[in-house]
Amino acid sequence: MPVRGARRPTLAGVADHAGVSLKTASRVLNGEPNVAEATRERVRAAAAALGFRRNAVAADLARGGVSKLLGFISGDIGNPFYSALASGIEQVARDHDMHLITTSCGEDGERERLLTEELLERRVGGLVVTPATGDHASLAGELAAGTRLVFVDRPADGLVADTVVIDNRGGVRSAVRHLSDHGHRRIAFVGDNPQVWTFRERRAAFLQVMAELGNPGAENWVRSGAHDAAEARSLVTALLDGPEPPTAVLAENNRVTEGALRALADAPGGARVALVGFDDFDLADLLGVTVVAYDAVELGRRAAELAVIPHDPAASPRTVTLATHLIPRGTGERRP
Amino acid sequence: MPVRGARRPTLAGVADHAGVSLKTASRVLNGEPNVAEATRERVRAAAAALGFRRNAVAADLARGGVSKLLGFISGDIGNPFYSALASGIEQVARDHDMHLITTSCGEDGERERLLTEELLERRVGGLVVTPATGDHASLAGELAAGTRLVFVDRPADGLVADTVVIDNRGGVRSAVRHLSDHGHRRIAFVGDNPQVWTFRERRAAFLQVMAELGNPGAENWVRSGAHDAAEARSLVTALLDGPEPPTAVLAENNRVTEGALRALADAPGGARVALVGFDDFDLADLLGVTVVAYDAVELGRRAAELAVIPHDPAASPRTVTLATHLIPRGTGERRP
Repeated sequence: MPVRGARRPTLAGVADHAGVSLKTASRVLNGEPNVAEATRERVRAAAAALGFRRNAVAADLARGGVSKLLGFISGDIGNPFYSALASGIEQVARDHDMHLITTSCGEDGERERLLTEELLERRVGGLVVTPATGDHASLAGELAAGTRLVFVDRPADGLVADTVVIDNRGGVRSAVRHLSDHGHRRIAFVGDNPQVWTFRERRAAFLQVMAELGNPGAENWVRSGAHDAAEARSLVTALLDGPEPPTAVLAENNRVTEGALRALADAPGGARVALVGFDDFDLADLLGVTVVAYDAVELGRRAAELAVIPHDPAASPRTVTLATHLIPRGTGERRP
Repeated sequence: MPVRGARRPTLAGVADHAGVSLKTASRVLNGEPNVAEATRERVRAAAAALGFRRNAVAADLARGGVSKLLGFISGDIGNPFYSALASGIEQVARDHDMHLITTSCGEDGERERLLTEELLERRVGGLVVTPATGDHASLAGELAAGTRLVFVDRPADGLVADTVVIDNRGGVRSAVRHLSDHGHRRIAFVGDNPQVWTFRERRAAFLQVMAELGNPGAENWVRSGAHDAAEARSLVTALLDGPEPPTAVLAENNRVTEGALRALADAPGGARVALVGFDDFDLADLLGVTVVAYDAVELGRRAAELAVIPHDPAASPRTVTLATHLIPRGTGERRP
């Protein structure tokens, strides 16, 4: 049995094993026509038996540089938001006879840069990226060389490129107005990472609407650092235990909503605190959670379409913004 | 501005642009030592400006064929079970200075074969696969050639290879015994695809335990085809509307549990029907859902360890089985 690290089987070896010429073996393995089916079978069997692999990158380049792979770099592979995005991207990839490969940078700019390199070096035929914080100017050369690079959920920093986002400000505006309409003034905004564009957009809208509603000092109602549900739970618990507890909570994303729900379930009187979550999630309806929703699968689809459908590369980069809408289910309709 | 499909920039072009020799440009771009930092910067800037990419596959081969990529082929990119698996695989990849790339076959054997080819042709340094139905014998040559191939959640068909699974039979056994201990005899088993190994294991355990408990005709309580939550909801609703409704439901996986919860929420008297779900899920605690749980992140971790930690390739393939445990939270403790 060959051992790990043994020399990889060659095309010549496959040809020998199948008893055909090198040229015939090459034709079969590159899917070219005009080879008898029996010969084709023999070469494939030889390739399988020897564990031979043609070099897909070389084959892609021979086909004119078009790869069958579409890449997606997500922020966090464990978050269902990214699963929904990936589902949408995959639908479009299949429609275009491409395969999606995804990877995750864990919201780390340096890892994102490395992963972008790795995928581009493997000649993906398009790349959709949820940009982490940090400068993306170094990718300008890629764009100029014709790489189909699309940013989703957030724009890139220092680089103008095709981008698909949701209407973050509109979503927060509808949530805060909804809570205000139900009599709340002491509304807390609890979020994840202030370095991330979506956080900044959502916080800016929160502060603006609170000011418009005549609620002063809204900065004091902002909490950040809730990277996961456990941290969100602690932050909300601390708010509720504070000297001036909020009567309503706006959770910046699905993880924060999960933590806030647990905090409210634990706190005495927590069942009377209103909650609106940004991002819809599985079973939110059964739990009666009011959310700001949007179509995350569609978000992925639109980004993938920009990445795979040819367009004039000299045209200006495009920005697509998808709508959000509030779904009242109970927690957002509690009155103070 | 270069257009899409224009000839890709060459190493010689980069060397020209940077005003260095071809050899120096190559040294810099392959990360070799003994080049002045200023020269290094100039070459990198030229490469970025021209959109030049070295060929990562060629570079991997030059390093002895070791790739920094670890591949994972999942069954369904939109299912949180696979997100949890991917999280575990990614943790191990990072520990070994590798990047995870994932892709999904949608439970389609032909797509799985194509994706396996695509990733192996791009020389991933290891591959973890959730096998779809169909024969995997064609991968025997890969294994023999030293490819680190590990199957997770289900064994491959027609191929003996490293495999990590959970104790499906033990999990179903504990669920059925738990429901029986709470007085149930009319227990329905609702699942997804009878072609999938986990379904077959879980159904076999269900039939066996029902027989041991003296509940005859358990075959009549088995329903399949619940590929998503909506189909599961229909199946459970039909059961509850039937002439002899079950007093308890065992849901084969997380999607089925979600559908069953909706069916019970809708049905008159549904709140009295017991439910145990296979697979834990986010917020199951807040919904009070009794589940058969296991550590899906650990499942991914163990599979990835088999894929990246070197071992004697002449040794027999390994099978790891992780434990399951029942978490009582309310729905499974209802009495008929």
